[in-house]
Amino acid sequence: MSVLENLEWRYATKRMNGTPVPQAKLDTILEAIRMAPTSLGLQPFKVIVVEDAALREKIYNEACQQPQVKEGSHLLIFAAYTKITPQDVDEYMDLIAKTREVPVEALSDFKSMITSSLFNGEVQHYAWTARQAYIAFGIGIVAAAEEKVDATPMEGFSVEALDRVLDLTEKNLSAVTILALGYRDPETDYLANAKKVRKRGADLFIHLP
Amino acid sequence: MSVLENLEWRYATKRMNGTPVPQAKLDTILEAIRMAPTSLGLQPFKVIVVEDAALREKIYNEACQQPQVKEGSHLLIFAAYTKITPQDVDEYMDLIAKTREVPVEALSDFKSMITSSLFNGEVQHYAWTARQAYIAFGIGIVAAAEEKVDATPMEGFSVEALDRVLDLTEKNLSAVTILALGYRDPETDYLANAKKVRKRGADLFIHLP
Repeated sequence: MSVLENLEWRYATKRMNGTPVPQAKLDTILEAIRMAPTSLGLQPFKVIVVEDAALREKIYNEACQQPQVKEGSHLLIFAAYTKITPQDVDEYMDLIAKTREVPVEALSDFKSMITSSLFNGEVQHYAWTARQAYIAFGIGIVAAAEEKVDATPMEGFSVEALDRVLDLTEKNLSAVTILALGYRDPETDYLANAKKVRKRGADLFIHLP
Repeated sequence: MSVLENLEWRYATKRMNGTPVPQAKLDTILEAIRMAPTSLGLQPFKVIVVEDAALREKIYNEACQQPQVKEGSHLLIFAAYTKITPQDVDEYMDLIAKTREVPVEALSDFKSMITSSLFNGEVQHYAWTARQAYIAFGIGIVAAAEEKVDATPMEGFSVEALDRVLDLTEKNLSAVTILALGYRDPETDYLANAKKVRKRGADLFIHLP
């Protein structure tokens, strides 16, 4: 099915039936997230994959009282870097050099460009890293739909509590959004058969001139 | 082709050959953006579609000196709401009521929830609306790849200048990111055959427990 058909099929699943997402489908969704582009290519976020029911129960109790947390089988928690360090840039340069088989010295112009754009005192790292995570988040939503896995984008959680439960702060991370993976339960989910609500193109797009 | 294959095919095209993207392909990409999910369903952004060569030249000169601005055929400029107003919420309620054929009064609980989550003095609207735009941005990138249209995600522009050129500020909007659409020019684009650089899964994912 096409991206458009998959977008039509998916919806913000409110109730799931507990059926676990097979490992192969999970792997495909994660691979799409890994392949998502980011500005400068830095991928300044991590995705915490939570399958364990006890940990999901704890997240439910302490950070996010939405049923999908328990009724799905996996949570993908997108956590953005709270700051970017020169070491992050160095590691990225090493990764490019290794992947493309070029000497790291050949990347000095690119490194200078990144350094001057990120460490000039003007860029708020976390605002920027969060946006990058959302690119991968959007792509993960499409990839899940292609796998016919229901995926609920969820922002309704306590960032502070989730960061604490997952020890994110000490890792220089903060949770920005969650994708709950599982399978819809049409019998209990009032949204399962609801018509999708979207603005008309005329209200979303501005064609210039 | 699958989402993964399309993600492998695409890359951050640096040089384009001027071939215009057909209207039907543009429409498909825009439709995917329109269908993208957003938190609460609010779609708090607009996408400015710029085809006119003179306007792209102006954007190139004043806001974004990257060749794709001129060598592509369309720019999609994602502009997020700088603030959300009660009127935006009312219009959204009307849209739900009309789409799902329910009385708007039946949505009062949902409206209260939205109002209390957005107008409690804690949510920075623009940080939040920008993230929503990035979900659609990520999905637009995948949709373009499916259409075999090259799409370059571009953040390297002057927000202030672009907002000015497009009169965005007076529309309560500010540009967050650009997707340039066109076709790659492998002869001049040094990235056309470069290996894609991505972190290993082990460096991007944290599997818990």
